[in-house]
Amino acid sequence: MKNYKLVLSYEGTRYRGWQRQGNTAGSIQEKLETLLSRLLEQQVELAASGRTDAGVHARMQVCSFRADTKRSSAELLQDLRRYLPEDIGAVSLEEAEPRFHARLSCREKTYLYRVWNSEAPNVFTRRFQLRMPEALDPGAMEQTAGLLCGEHDFAAFCSLKNTKRSTARDLRSIQILRDGEELQLYFTGDGFLYNMVRILTGTLLEVGQGLRTPESVRQALLSGDRSMAGPTAPAQGLCLWEVKY
Amino acid sequence: MKNYKLVLSYEGTRYRGWQRQGNTAGSIQEKLETLLSRLLEQQVELAASGRTDAGVHARMQVCSFRADTKRSSAELLQDLRRYLPEDIGAVSLEEAEPRFHARLSCREKTYLYRVWNSEAPNVFTRRFQLRMPEALDPGAMEQTAGLLCGEHDFAAFCSLKNTKRSTARDLRSIQILRDGEELQLYFTGDGFLYNMVRILTGTLLEVGQGLRTPESVRQALLSGDRSMAGPTAPAQGLCLWEVKY
Repeated sequence: MKNYKLVLSYEGTRYRGWQRQGNTAGSIQEKLETLLSRLLEQQVELAASGRTDAGVHARMQVCSFRADTKRSSAELLQDLRRYLPEDIGAVSLEEAEPRFHARLSCREKTYLYRVWNSEAPNVFTRRFQLRMPEALDPGAMEQTAGLLCGEHDFAAFCSLKNTKRSTARDLRSIQILRDGEELQLYFTGDGFLYNMVRILTGTLLEVGQGLRTPESVRQALLSGDRSMAGPTAPAQGLCLWEVKY
Repeated sequence: MKNYKLVLSYEGTRYRGWQRQGNTAGSIQEKLETLLSRLLEQQVELAASGRTDAGVHARMQVCSFRADTKRSSAELLQDLRRYLPEDIGAVSLEEAEPRFHARLSCREKTYLYRVWNSEAPNVFTRRFQLRMPEALDPGAMEQTAGLLCGEHDFAAFCSLKNTKRSTARDLRSIQILRDGEELQLYFTGDGFLYNMVRILTGTLLEVGQGLRTPESVRQALLSGDRSMAGPTAPAQGLCLWEVKY
């Protein structure tokens, strides 16, 4: 059995998200597993660094799988590129050490949330951005980002109630950059809860618009109460940017 | 009657090109004229800086039209943004001086052709690039670009035979830039013949791949014979970049 590391990029627009859901079609995992199983003539199961929701994109999603084959990685990569739909890209494929696991070995992830901050539409990037014409106060957003970073219980920034698992995470940095009319929010951490980046973004954007104060976000964080945080920002603006091992 | 200058951007993927073709639907001009006529309750006819082919994009397409209305430009712009499909963007709308005409007043145009020059696909820009994994020789392409610039008869770089009209144009510059794995070709001139930028690109890419010499391109230019030049590069990589008045 060989162990493989596969790096993917995808446009999530027309998918139900990363994760296979029973036997229903429409997930990226299902597309990949079906293709790999056919190419390798054996049942292939993929592990990914993490799930992405329906409509969320990935510049760099890392997967791992085991397979028994004599074919070279280069050949297999070529076949993947030939048969994958054009909104899923096989960036690289290589043999990994036996203990490598895309989710369990992951040390750090970065997500990017893109906001098109203009009255005029951008037809070229509309599938990858949230459009928000309202003026945004960078100072207030920076201040809030500072309050959110660090090791905290992020229960208030998670869509799913699961009392058994820890909701503590280390949010290592939030970088807020402006590139012309685009606002880019980079979130880096050891891991993220369900919808966490989208709720952090929705909350930061409310602060940016002056709809709430940085202090109210600190209160939300302390409360652990989802209803105290801002709305879940739309999926289309989110992209899994980088995964580190 | 007021005279208007309308700046548009569009993703050309699902359109038959700029120009209205009889009563058939599917052109960008037809979409715009139908909407403007309805909003202004009068027949509106648009002039554009130039046609773009089916599948070609525009970052900046300039149009002009006359209309008799009391509504402000700001109001009308807002309505355009509300009712246009999301792949056509109204960038700006303003009243122009009476003699302004989007095509006749145009002094200079710039087109951008984008090539994704990598083995790995790019899922995010695939609608706006030609994918070409082959290695490209920048020196040979630069040399050829130098031969093509200037005032020439570009009959060899035009898809339509029209013996009556002049095929002389002033190709002011070809800039070849590399941004990582993307090759960008900017063409600036006083005007372009039908398919001219796409044939120039197809020819330059053949030179880049070593399939033909710069000298063979000089011969093609001198011959005025379309069959001596390279292939017409696909529409999706082309974008009307800038129009100057």
